[in-house]
Amino acid sequence: MVITLLSDFGDMYPASMKGVILSINPAASIVDISHSVPRHDVRAGAFMLMTCAGYFPSSTVHIAVVDPGVGTERRPLAIRAESVEAGIHYFVGPDNGLLIPAARSIGELEAYEITNTALFRNEISSTFHGRDIFAPVGAHISGGLRIGDVGGRIFDFIDLDFGEAKKKDDSVEGRVIFIDSFGNIVTNIPSDIAGFQPGNILEIEGKRILFHRSYGFCEKGEPLALIGSHGYLEIAVNQGNAAALFNKKAGEEILVRKLY
Amino acid sequence: MVITLLSDFGDMYPASMKGVILSINPAASIVDISHSVPRHDVRAGAFMLMTCAGYFPSSTVHIAVVDPGVGTERRPLAIRAESVEAGIHYFVGPDNGLLIPAARSIGELEAYEITNTALFRNEISSTFHGRDIFAPVGAHISGGLRIGDVGGRIFDFIDLDFGEAKKKDDSVEGRVIFIDSFGNIVTNIPSDIAGFQPGNILEIEGKRILFHRSYGFCEKGEPLALIGSHGYLEIAVNQGNAAALFNKKAGEEILVRKLY
Amino acid sequence: MVITLLSDFGDMYPASMKGVILSINPAASIVDISHSVPRHDVRAGAFMLMTCAGYFPSSTVHIAVVDPGVGTERRPLAIRAESVEAGIHYFVGPDNGLLIPAARSIGELEAYEITNTALFRNEISSTFHGRDIFAPVGAHISGGLRIGDVGGRIFDFIDLDFGEAKKKDDSVEGRVIFIDSFGNIVTNIPSDIAGFQPGNILEIEGKRILFHRSYGFCEKGEPLALIGSHGYLEIAVNQGNAAALFNKKAGEEILVRKLY
Repeated sequence: MVITLLSDFGDMYPASMKGVILSINPAASIVDISHSVPRHDVRAGAFMLMTCAGYFPSSTVHIAVVDPGVGTERRPLAIRAESVEAGIHYFVGPDNGLLIPAARSIGELEAYEITNTALFRNEISSTFHGRDIFAPVGAHISGGLRIGDVGGRIFDFIDLDFGEAKKKDDSVEGRVIFIDSFGNIVTNIPSDIAGFQPGNILEIEGKRILFHRSYGFCEKGEPLALIGSHGYLEIAVNQGNAAALFNKKAGEEILVRKLY
Repeated sequence: MVITLLSDFGDMYPASMKGVILSINPAASIVDISHSVPRHDVRAGAFMLMTCAGYFPSSTVHIAVVDPGVGTERRPLAIRAESVEAGIHYFVGPDNGLLIPAARSIGELEAYEITNTALFRNEISSTFHGRDIFAPVGAHISGGLRIGDVGGRIFDFIDLDFGEAKKKDDSVEGRVIFIDSFGNIVTNIPSDIAGFQPGNILEIEGKRILFHRSYGFCEKGEPLALIGSHGYLEIAVNQGNAAALFNKKAGEEILVRKLY
Repeated sequence: MVITLLSDFGDMYPASMKGVILSINPAASIVDISHSVPRHDVRAGAFMLMTCAGYFPSSTVHIAVVDPGVGTERRPLAIRAESVEAGIHYFVGPDNGLLIPAARSIGELEAYEITNTALFRNEISSTFHGRDIFAPVGAHISGGLRIGDVGGRIFDFIDLDFGEAKKKDDSVEGRVIFIDSFGNIVTNIPSDIAGFQPGNILEIEGKRILFHRSYGFCEKGEPLALIGSHGYLEIAVNQGNAAALFNKKAGEEILVRKLY
């Protein structure tokens, strides 16, 4: 059974979670999605989880922890999502929106508040629920625990989406969701709304750039727009840093105009 | 069988160790604790190993290599440690203190000098005993080799501890063990010696800071003291760098005074 | 069955490849060699793969993607390499030379152009063949697919080598292949051509440095030359950055003179 991990914990701390998981379910095959989510950036984490989750096999348990509210009253959550295409996926983490876009990308979702403390580690620290609550609960689900056994179903979980990109004539207005580790600007503008064709010239922040199919078509240092592997419009600089060149940060608006 | 790896090797080099391990024990489930231990910092590595090892299941083999003396006369070591709570854990690495605090945290320890060269790779480089000695020995132990078969028992292994924090009236004097990848200052002051309560105001290096239960209670940029997930006093800045703010380095003394 | 991954994808993107692999071959044991190959640096990636591949067990599938030409006409490749000592290894990746030195280091190689689109994911992005082509093909080979079933055999694959070091009197002239994550300068000068002995004094770029057997013999901050764990001459600074000190970059020539 596959268990994925995503967090903003950086180095070392994820290992304790893996120890806890393997103590409960020795057959778990653990895959790191990332532990370099920008610290406490729930939206970036939600986007990264959403763009990866669907590639995993049915029955995968995704444990995700970007959790500025750890130790406060925010609820721990377990979610089951299902569709014919993607099968059944489970999501375990804090009730702050982190899990929702990924779960929705899989299919219909059911959310449960985790209240069954018998599943937790014996001592619960106030700073590391990833290790003490989410890892053991995820490991138990991966080992066959019915999701209803974690606690009662809830409907008022905290929601999160990436906003909607708007098309007006030849312009699309969207938002920067995320700057990846190469400085690529990932937007919330999906392929079909952008509607650009290879060869189109776009204007972004007063700069003209080509819309390409891939990096292979442009020179080192040249900026380009393309549909990233996640299906959203991305602005990149071949072997350079687009966020620096266009001076863009996560959360900011971005306007893309097609010149011809 | 779980095998953990900890080193200061950075990128790429740990992969050869994994290849060697899987060639000997294809069933090994390998978990990285960290390969970003500050280069040649045996104390930091020892602390990281100590705070993670106990979360792994009984029979785990921990291979740890922070080894400024590689290629010199320092001995290779295998350790067995056991307690009722933690089960049996094995530790493999250089005889420079790296393994000792972790092994002690598990329970009673027995140390053996690795001298059985039949277990090594055929060619031993003088710079990479992690791959040529420690990985194969750890893989053989994980596959069922009795620890006594690696070589003779020794009692004069090199010891290492993190010093003892001292309480005097309302002050505690300790030492910085480790700066983590977020700049959090991890001290050698355990929870029960600190004895602080949420809401206490502390003074550290002339700065007043609150003792909290977790990050969730303070604002972005605000410094705080808390008991970290490893059970020791930690000074952090919510989404900031405490080591920079307080100008502290690993190994330095730190004085914490409770004001009220 | 072991599958290794090497790429310049950085964080997050390799996780989708792992999801695809585990969906096809749930028994795969996946090992990351590195995802921090310098962006688009095919030579550095080829060297890293070459120095790690041989440590893995027979039947390992190595999926490697450093692919500036993704989305263009460059061919996808699968290679089978075999020798008595190393067994059979498979390599999957772009036809740009990346796989060749590693495959040659294993033994006799047979190359096949991947044309069997039934093995691909249903939708092929133009930027992420690692996920959509190479991961599924590698997973199928690891699951037992005959390599001839990926497509026809070819002989005109793109070759790559690291050049030949030349010895003249007491000097060796070579080239910098790669700067590792510590700033160590890795050259293409193999141990037997260098022919240095511990204690020799060398001159590199007007600086005198000692040839040692390992780091353990020199002081912090001191430069040294040694035969790295990969078997090639390496210039390092104990706990420092040799590439900065000697002002060397990947691809540049390097002249090493033995003084005595």
